[in-house]
Amino acid sequence: MTSKRLLKDIEFIVELDKMKSILRQTSLIDNSKRENDAEHSWHISVMAMILSEYANEDIDLCKVIRMLLVHDLVEIYAGDTFCYDKEGNKDKKERELEAADKIFGMLEEDKGRELRNLWDEFEEMKTKEAIFAASMDRLQPFFNNYFSGGGTWKKFDVSKKEVYKRIAPLKESSDELWEFTQKMIEDAFDKGYITRE
Amino acid sequence: MTSKRLLKDIEFIVELDKMKSILRQTSLIDNSKRENDAEHSWHISVMAMILSEYANEDIDLCKVIRMLLVHDLVEIYAGDTFCYDKEGNKDKKERELEAADKIFGMLEEDKGRELRNLWDEFEEMKTKEAIFAASMDRLQPFFNNYFSGGGTWKKFDVSKKEVYKRIAPLKESSDELWEFTQKMIEDAFDKGYITRE
Repeated sequence: MTSKRLLKDIEFIVELDKMKSILRQTSLIDNSKRENDAEHSWHISVMAMILSEYANEDIDLCKVIRMLLVHDLVEIYAGDTFCYDKEGNKDKKERELEAADKIFGMLEEDKGRELRNLWDEFEEMKTKEAIFAASMDRLQPFFNNYFSGGGTWKKFDVSKKEVYKRIAPLKESSDELWEFTQKMIEDAFDKGYITRE
Repeated sequence: MTSKRLLKDIEFIVELDKMKSILRQTSLIDNSKRENDAEHSWHISVMAMILSEYANEDIDLCKVIRMLLVHDLVEIYAGDTFCYDKEGNKDKKERELEAADKIFGMLEEDKGRELRNLWDEFEEMKTKEAIFAASMDRLQPFFNNYFSGGGTWKKFDVSKKEVYKRIAPLKESSDELWEFTQKMIEDAFDKGYITRE
């Protein structure tokens, strides 16, 4: 007899497949297509492995990765809300909380709770792991914009001030990455990838 | 001054973006498109989080996840070789070893070595973590085939014997998952998703 617990796990795993169809605004660096949530979640998880050595504090890398792997699952139901979309961000929290109940509620209580705790911690952005995870989440589209020649900065006429605000968690998580990122923002401005102050 | 080390890391992270364009034979469960390496790597990493409790032995989940996140990086240069493609599998090892030197060689020696060790361990499939990781790598396309009504089994007329052979690592890694998987194979045969013995 297959346990009810395992059957729920399988249903959850099947549901995860939908992440491959949730499009984000960010495009690939070669500009061939927009990336989706599954691709983004993978990219930032590997980035955490590569960049964790630059964290100002000792961080639990495994926790950061587990957080990043599930941080966007709510978008299966709530959709992707573009970070610079003021209108969409008004009810984002509400939509995502509802989606969190739904997606994590698919699993047995203890298991759903474990993933929900990771998501809550990520969203609250208070622990050093959550702040580092947020830094990866923001740095990846930043790189894709920069190395594709402007990306969503250009497309949506995002200001330098808005870019600085978005990337702010890095300031707290890593001096070395923050220093480098600042240079990139100024360079992006000089190159015309960002056109407004 | 940005360190040479960090510059190499950034180049590596930019290169990772190509994983989003390496198509696998497996399609999404809704049959809307073929999945790519980034999506696949993400899906199996979350699966490891969900299914590790069924492992026969205590495993280091963090190691399994790190292994899964990088196990397909060589395909950036070697391409995806379909598991049931006898011709392509003849020189797969050679092509992938060359690709491994290239991709992991982008990083500083110690860092490249760390990822290379994870890849080597995965490929050798000897440790309990590598066997569990391989199980996830094989179970995900198995689920996608089953829940999409046949997938690559049907498309490439794969036999039941071949499916059993491909999924064999599960037999070693988890009694509960193996039992469930066997039922699914027999059911897939009954349903006509797999047509040859």
